[in-house]
Amino acid sequence: MDRRADRGIAAPLPRDIRKTAIDPDYWYPLARSRDIPRGGKKGVSFAGEPIVLARTETGHIFALEDRCAHRQVPLSLGEVRGERLLCGYHCWAYNTAGACINVPYLDKDKSLPNGVKSYPCVEAYGLVFVYPGDVNAAGIERFPHIPTWGDPAYKTRYLDRRIDCHYSFMHENLMDMNHQFLHRSLMGSINPTALDIREGDGWVEVDYTFHRARGKQPIGEKFMLGRRSKAPNAKSEAREDKDIMTIRTGYPYQTLQFWTAGSSEPALDLWNAYVPIDAEQRKNHTFGLMMVRKPGVPGAIHLLWPFIIAFTNGIFGQDEDIVEAEQRAFDAQGEDRNNEIFPIIQKLRHLLVTQGRPIPGVE
Amino acid sequence: MDRRADRGIAAPLPRDIRKTAIDPDYWYPLARSRDIPRGGKKGVSFAGEPIVLARTETGHIFALEDRCAHRQVPLSLGEVRGERLLCGYHCWAYNTAGACINVPYLDKDKSLPNGVKSYPCVEAYGLVFVYPGDVNAAGIERFPHIPTWGDPAYKTRYLDRRIDCHYSFMHENLMDMNHQFLHRSLMGSINPTALDIREGDGWVEVDYTFHRARGKQPIGEKFMLGRRSKAPNAKSEAREDKDIMTIRTGYPYQTLQFWTAGSSEPALDLWNAYVPIDAEQRKNHTFGLMMVRKPGVPGAIHLLWPFIIAFTNGIFGQDEDIVEAEQRAFDAQGEDRNNEIFPIIQKLRHLLVTQGRPIPGVE
Amino acid sequence: MDRRADRGIAAPLPRDIRKTAIDPDYWYPLARSRDIPRGGKKGVSFAGEPIVLARTETGHIFALEDRCAHRQVPLSLGEVRGERLLCGYHCWAYNTAGACINVPYLDKDKSLPNGVKSYPCVEAYGLVFVYPGDVNAAGIERFPHIPTWGDPAYKTRYLDRRIDCHYSFMHENLMDMNHQFLHRSLMGSINPTALDIREGDGWVEVDYTFHRARGKQPIGEKFMLGRRSKAPNAKSEAREDKDIMTIRTGYPYQTLQFWTAGSSEPALDLWNAYVPIDAEQRKNHTFGLMMVRKPGVPGAIHLLWPFIIAFTNGIFGQDEDIVEAEQRAFDAQGEDRNNEIFPIIQKLRHLLVTQGRPIPGVE
Repeated sequence: MDRRADRGIAAPLPRDIRKTAIDPDYWYPLARSRDIPRGGKKGVSFAGEPIVLARTETGHIFALEDRCAHRQVPLSLGEVRGERLLCGYHCWAYNTAGACINVPYLDKDKSLPNGVKSYPCVEAYGLVFVYPGDVNAAGIERFPHIPTWGDPAYKTRYLDRRIDCHYSFMHENLMDMNHQFLHRSLMGSINPTALDIREGDGWVEVDYTFHRARGKQPIGEKFMLGRRSKAPNAKSEAREDKDIMTIRTGYPYQTLQFWTAGSSEPALDLWNAYVPIDAEQRKNHTFGLMMVRKPGVPGAIHLLWPFIIAFTNGIFGQDEDIVEAEQRAFDAQGEDRNNEIFPIIQKLRHLLVTQGRPIPGVE
Repeated sequence: MDRRADRGIAAPLPRDIRKTAIDPDYWYPLARSRDIPRGGKKGVSFAGEPIVLARTETGHIFALEDRCAHRQVPLSLGEVRGERLLCGYHCWAYNTAGACINVPYLDKDKSLPNGVKSYPCVEAYGLVFVYPGDVNAAGIERFPHIPTWGDPAYKTRYLDRRIDCHYSFMHENLMDMNHQFLHRSLMGSINPTALDIREGDGWVEVDYTFHRARGKQPIGEKFMLGRRSKAPNAKSEAREDKDIMTIRTGYPYQTLQFWTAGSSEPALDLWNAYVPIDAEQRKNHTFGLMMVRKPGVPGAIHLLWPFIIAFTNGIFGQDEDIVEAEQRAFDAQGEDRNNEIFPIIQKLRHLLVTQGRPIPGVE
Repeated sequence: MDRRADRGIAAPLPRDIRKTAIDPDYWYPLARSRDIPRGGKKGVSFAGEPIVLARTETGHIFALEDRCAHRQVPLSLGEVRGERLLCGYHCWAYNTAGACINVPYLDKDKSLPNGVKSYPCVEAYGLVFVYPGDVNAAGIERFPHIPTWGDPAYKTRYLDRRIDCHYSFMHENLMDMNHQFLHRSLMGSINPTALDIREGDGWVEVDYTFHRARGKQPIGEKFMLGRRSKAPNAKSEAREDKDIMTIRTGYPYQTLQFWTAGSSEPALDLWNAYVPIDAEQRKNHTFGLMMVRKPGVPGAIHLLWPFIIAFTNGIFGQDEDIVEAEQRAFDAQGEDRNNEIFPIIQKLRHLLVTQGRPIPGVE
């Protein structure tokens, strides 16, 4: 008998998951809108490609390769003037499409030099999205649809942090709710139960319910999700009698929704993107929208918000520490050696590998 | 005529000494006992292998591979509960032998996953020793014998510091007493004389005597070794009329004993182990027991101790700086280029190379 | 038609300019004289070679390989005594020619070991120069001639800073005055015009004139160069009616002279050397002599000096930031991808490549 199968360990993946590049043919958030005011610019990165995001003085946002065609210095060290981005070194000027439109000291008989690569760039949900892949395939139909954002019944917290690990660790971390043990100091002892697993083309999702085995519900969680009884209807068979959390990776994004028992609208609706920073994709910038349903009392959300922020910061800090420890273990071992026994994570890993691509230069 | 021989330079060694791994088939101290209280754990390392040392709530100490079998994160980030070590991420539980004995969310029809490697682990002399080599050869008969430890006539200082150099530099540093010049600012000018060299299977040792050429004896040294005259019996031929220092590398450990002229018990008895930390063995953790004979007046050692600590800290700091400079020189040159003319160090180098092993992946 | 030529882009160079080693057969400044008093020593570096500069107690300056022949530790950690340099570890003694002249514990029947490499070393202009190349070719006739230094009509500022870029970026930065745009926050808007380009065996030079398009002349510049009108004689055809700046790379050094319209002596005379520090030559130590002509009022230079220092520090800081950004772009891309359209810089690049050498180990 196959001992691996006996233990519930899945067949090997077609590629090392940590040596898998994210598919660039999607829209990725690279900055928050507020970080790029009119006349502003910011240097960011997608999988090792330096990109400058800039906004003209009339408000048009655009994304270019962040390297002057002349001497390769970052254009993000330059300056927006009017509708142009000027390199800060010798004042070569680019338009929003990346064409070089002026070199102040160019001989009159010479043509202008080549410009730089431009990227499709769209602003939505308070984020600036770029399409780093094949520009001919940059269909706006692939743009993420986040209907809860902008719903006045919700208040949104932005997640915006660099985390030194491959994006796949982020997906696995959130989707495997058995990691509640990691948060025992903040959340007490909570037992998750996986109720249902579903999958389709480019997505997997799982439903959980929970009951509190030990400890008190923390105040930040209570303000965010409402007071939860110790074992809400744990013995009930009816789904509508339970708290339900659904976590979905709809490639390349990830969402989490939490419904308290019997409610028709989620108390919490989370949308995340984990954007590779470096060429080896061992670091990511996590952008997220954490939409919290406001309580019935008008304005009460503002009183509760600091507690929600503090609670979620604590949780994110613990998650960040552990996924970075996973990355260090991978770096030391040179290959993924996880032994995954949890079915939804096995499916998730297969999804991330098959949707991704090889990383150039990584065997 | 061979110019190298004329200069007293030895024949080349069979392997680059700095590319020589320490023999793992010995007991190595990896922590102080007090760093691992009941219910505590600590992540350490032997030659690149991560090891967690832990003590159960009933006091049993044990050593495991410091990587959860599930997702490879350090078990030292987890928690001891009762007689188990729990991974801090998803709560996989290990017993003291490294077997995985519980996964909270494992399907009832599945067997438990494989566990992790365990290491023989013994506590002695206030240190926690691990045997990282072939477990079938882990004979306790190879355990170091340190009779002065625990003798009430002595007080012990623990050395416990990370030093960024190959362990061989540590052995050479201590055994070559001509390096007293390094300590001239703290010790004045002292001239060592090598009296005798002895060697055997797995060990070399040398006797020195000293006389002070210039400067005053420092107060910390005086409290540790007693007042030394400027040239104690320098002209006497009798060994018992001299101060004698014996330094011995009994592979893989090193000891130093100092007898003042005419005394039958050493004033100072030092036992050191230099434990490689990283896979390339370019860093070591030095653990030492510095046993100082108490003066005749009861309790006086406590008054003198701060001076002894300050003096030895100064000496160790100078040694640390110079051996780390040696390692940097090796790193820059890519090979050992020492020209050793001192016979005992030539023998020591040969011993360390022949007792050691190649470092995997280092040519 | 060749599009590159149409844009004024030069033919490819025979070697990647950033993978070109500087020619070691020249005199290079490695320290300021005042950093090495009598009995002092300092560890420096030329293209990865560690060098110790030392001065005997009678004042003789000398340069040796900064590695003891014994255990390779830096001699710069040692001590000058009389006319000798002692290694700080085991007290091996070297004379000013690098010969090992004493080992305190050497057996009487043994010859002294080999010593260390010595370098020709000459002090001038307040700097210590070393000749790192072929010692048989160390002709003093190649020593740089800097007549303005020591002229009482000028006051000298020393430049002495480590900059993390290949030396070629330094030459290009200074010679391409179109980079005045980089300094717009400090200097306002200045338009340079290249008047004339000259070249010969081992040198290229260019004349510029300037006019201020926008902004006020900064006070530091005014004190250094005198008050400049907004467009001094911009329409005059006569050279003597213009401010003239001449920048010359006379391999491997670089100079800049600035004459205000009609004056026969330069208001500013700058001499620079960019000395590679590391073996890959991706860092340099810039030593410079910035000689400023004193105003007619005796002593007035001392009042003006702090403003001149502050102004030039600001300029150098901006230059340093941008050349280090260039080096990072090269490191990320692995090759020089500049598209140079400015004729003098094309000539300069050709000069630096053809006068230089391949870097060992860099393809």
